[in-house]
Amino acid sequence: MAPCASLLLPVFVILATLPIIQSVPTFFPRPSYDQSLAKQPKASKPKIPYKTHYFPQVLDHFTFQPKSSKVFYQKYLVNSHYWHRGAPIFVYTGNEGDIEWFAANTGFLLDIAPKFRALLVFIEHRFYGESMPFGNKSYKSAETLGYLNSQQALADFALLIRSLKHNLSSEASPVVVFGGSYGGSRLKIPSQLLMLNGFDSLFLVFNEKVSLLSLSVLAAWFRLKYPHIAIGALASSAPILQFDDITPWSSFYDAVSQDFKEASLNCYEVIKGSWAELEALSAQKEGLAELSRTFRACQDLHSLDSVWEWLWSAFVYTAMVNYPTDANFLMPLPAYPVQAMCKIIDGFPSGASKITRVFAAASLYYNYSRAEKCFKLEHEPDAHGLHGWNWQACTEMVMPMTCSEDSMFPTSSFSYKEFAEDCMRTFGVQPRPHWITTEFGGKRIELVLKRSGGNIIFSNGMQDPWSRGGVLKNISSSIIALVTEKGAHHVDFRSATKDDPEWLKELRRQEVEIIQGWIDQYYPDLKRTNKE
Amino acid sequence: MAPCASLLLPVFVILATLPIIQSVPTFFPRPSYDQSLAKQPKASKPKIPYKTHYFPQVLDHFTFQPKSSKVFYQKYLVNSHYWHRGAPIFVYTGNEGDIEWFAANTGFLLDIAPKFRALLVFIEHRFYGESMPFGNKSYKSAETLGYLNSQQALADFALLIRSLKHNLSSEASPVVVFGGSYGGSRLKIPSQLLMLNGFDSLFLVFNEKVSLLSLSVLAAWFRLKYPHIAIGALASSAPILQFDDITPWSSFYDAVSQDFKEASLNCYEVIKGSWAELEALSAQKEGLAELSRTFRACQDLHSLDSVWEWLWSAFVYTAMVNYPTDANFLMPLPAYPVQAMCKIIDGFPSGASKITRVFAAASLYYNYSRAEKCFKLEHEPDAHGLHGWNWQACTEMVMPMTCSEDSMFPTSSFSYKEFAEDCMRTFGVQPRPHWITTEFGGKRIELVLKRSGGNIIFSNGMQDPWSRGGVLKNISSSIIALVTEKGAHHVDFRSATKDDPEWLKELRRQEVEIIQGWIDQYYPDLKRTNKE
Repeated sequence: MAPCASLLLPVFVILATLPIIQSVPTFFPRPSYDQSLAKQPKASKPKIPYKTHYFPQVLDHFTFQPKSSKVFYQKYLVNSHYWHRGAPIFVYTGNEGDIEWFAANTGFLLDIAPKFRALLVFIEHRFYGESMPFGNKSYKSAETLGYLNSQQALADFALLIRSLKHNLSSEASPVVVFGGSYGGSRLKIPSQLLMLNGFDSLFLVFNEKVSLLSLSVLAAWFRLKYPHIAIGALASSAPILQFDDITPWSSFYDAVSQDFKEASLNCYEVIKGSWAELEALSAQKEGLAELSRTFRACQDLHSLDSVWEWLWSAFVYTAMVNYPTDANFLMPLPAYPVQAMCKIIDGFPSGASKITRVFAAASLYYNYSRAEKCFKLEHEPDAHGLHGWNWQACTEMVMPMTCSEDSMFPTSSFSYKEFAEDCMRTFGVQPRPHWITTEFGGKRIELVLKRSGGNIIFSNGMQDPWSRGGVLKNISSSIIALVTEKGAHHVDFRSATKDDPEWLKELRRQEVEIIQGWIDQYYPDLKRTNKE
Repeated sequence: MAPCASLLLPVFVILATLPIIQSVPTFFPRPSYDQSLAKQPKASKPKIPYKTHYFPQVLDHFTFQPKSSKVFYQKYLVNSHYWHRGAPIFVYTGNEGDIEWFAANTGFLLDIAPKFRALLVFIEHRFYGESMPFGNKSYKSAETLGYLNSQQALADFALLIRSLKHNLSSEASPVVVFGGSYGGSRLKIPSQLLMLNGFDSLFLVFNEKVSLLSLSVLAAWFRLKYPHIAIGALASSAPILQFDDITPWSSFYDAVSQDFKEASLNCYEVIKGSWAELEALSAQKEGLAELSRTFRACQDLHSLDSVWEWLWSAFVYTAMVNYPTDANFLMPLPAYPVQAMCKIIDGFPSGASKITRVFAAASLYYNYSRAEKCFKLEHEPDAHGLHGWNWQACTEMVMPMTCSEDSMFPTSSFSYKEFAEDCMRTFGVQPRPHWITTEFGGKRIELVLKRSGGNIIFSNGMQDPWSRGGVLKNISSSIIALVTEKGAHHVDFRSATKDDPEWLKELRRQEVEIIQGWIDQYYPDLKRTNKE
């Protein structure tokens, strides 16, 4: 179900009481969909070999514990193919999930490493992949999950980088941190928990996409909090301003809608009108049966929710990955998939129902390979238990979102009270909705970073709805916003391809130039400091 | 016993195994001395009324806990006499101990408040004064003390300031943080723990002076980590570089010695020679009895340790407070007390022993009022149990110190291994000697802060031995070092007096001017941001 629709239809009132959905509205991937794709591509193996290491990491950096600090083993990967002692170190501040997949799928770093003779380091994020502080009990309860948060993760990076440089006898190497890329690891990552239990229902989902988003934010925060460890950060598609009340809560869905409206006004209107049509149909006798047929459900549908969610995911994610070339990021898709979807919607004869049109459009997302005969719209509770991102959303990563009248989704509001109640019910934890802005700032960010901070690139593509929570204007001569009108979700971090348009090549060229500038500044600075 | 002497004399071998002393060598006030001063001045009451508040503070900012976060009540004081909504807020980042005493003794803030129409806020530091997270069990064990550290304290300040501004409906008020002042609260603060149990001895002391020093560091760190909350910081006498291996470990005692050498070479040589003379005497039959008489001990001495420590404290603290006017900071003392001490030493007839001379010099520190008939050189274990600073020294605030051949103290080295063993024995905790530089930086600080950070004044007086661990050169156009040759420990934070020399008036004038500059920059910045 689309969270934006939660207040519109009685059937969704259950879910309207579950503001977790509202706060993290794009976190609803459906593994059943994934599994339903017969031609799901195999995750590619890394192009360049790297070595796996494990770092004995401190569990709690900020509370000293009796005896020695409890440690866990944090995985990290190193590629030293181009590097020599003293040369730059590029650190990818890990996302949720197996770090190998991120290393294998962050082409940009591999592309630029030779030019900089850079060491590449991919650090796995605590509580993901193999870096489980409490083994398979890591997600057991609030007691263990309490250690999963951004400040602990940043301190992990700091400690590991410092230790690594020490062990390499290369303390003076400049470090640049990168955050933003996804990793394409959906086959490997436990991807979702969805539980629906009637009126006492619990709707929690884990979505690697969004925790990724938060972690691209980590690269920027790392530079702000640990300038002594990283000389600069490239934060691609980092919605650093998506917290608290900094960015209008409706901006995300307005931006999704804008993408479709720009492609075709009719397309936007069809989607906008489809929700009511779906509701009306489902209210009819045999309505669900008809929907099951229309949506080619592998099994008979039990509620309209699944259809809404299925459609909603397709539109939101397609907007995010509205890339200028064929790509297989979240799903295999053609170039400019939003335009392709709208072409499908607009291409029907005038008498066709909105339902038929939106189904056809969404099929592009789920079945571009045309291998699917039916779709698994309803899914099973995830065996992996509560997953990391939901915990983070229920503690610090509170991102309220709503759908306005202008969006193509049904209008919805956000109730913090309900959200908090739900988090308490689910995790036994109280969210701290103002904590991120207290710890990392964000309000009046230009004012703050004009007189502090430096060497950060905020890169955003306006096709990506997350761009609305990003930094879109230069703040100072060294805090730079690179904005592309046609860019989508961290398109710059993808491997270069022969089909890349000029604006994308130019974007990457600018990024490389700015990073080169930091490094060209750093070495003379260092020389001067050493002389003194 | 002077830690620097720990390796010289067999009698001190016990203490030589106790590197806590070595790491925090100036933290040895002796309440018995205090009590022995008949004319110990009563702590003055605040000149300006303030209101006491209590803030429900989060115990652990960095680990989310089940149910709701545990809170404790953090005390803070507000003076709004000159303030109006939107005007600046000056925050004193609290030291250990009752915040009222700091408020009452930080004259500089009271002096400049009218000019800035500033709200004055004094925030008590967690685990000190009334702000005890676990009531009278706060110091019970490593489990409770674990929450006593600088990062938690900084987050306390951030949360409290933000909440305060919100409650005052004055979110846009610029905040400037101040750290450095002592507070003169030695009568109120539980001041020392000294336990000597033979060869398995434990020598731990708590000294408000030094935790104060660390907390002046907090103001600078706060600006670096929370630039979105404070627009600037004045960190007076902040030994931000006293950690790890940034500053030579011998620099502190070399600086103390330098003060005395500058006053008189003979004076320096007499003190330097006195330790061996004391050792020789104590080794003689009836030596301790003779020392008891010479040092006018109220009770017969049991070891030479007390004499060494008594002398050592007098020299170190007098160097720190070598103020240009009569003052009563640590003790009532005349203007330029180092010079006064050396005048005493130099004034003896040529045949006088070094022991006689150093006793007379130290008596200036302990008995300037001449009220004392005898001195309590040996002291009792403190009933308050383990105190905060020792915990901090055994966890994050590891400041190794040694005495070089050039110092006027016996040479000594620092053994991290022994230090760590001692901390484990005492608190059951493992120190993290590189943590402060990992979390806050410090190494190559010019290089780092040149490209990040801004709006910090590091003020240091070269008479103060802590200055050697301070920032003594401008780093950028807005990270300014104000250094006075004749200044001592945060002399700038003391109330202005009619006797202040020109250089001190000029120092304060510069500080006010720079702070005014930040504020003059801030409001137009704010206006511009609000327009956008």
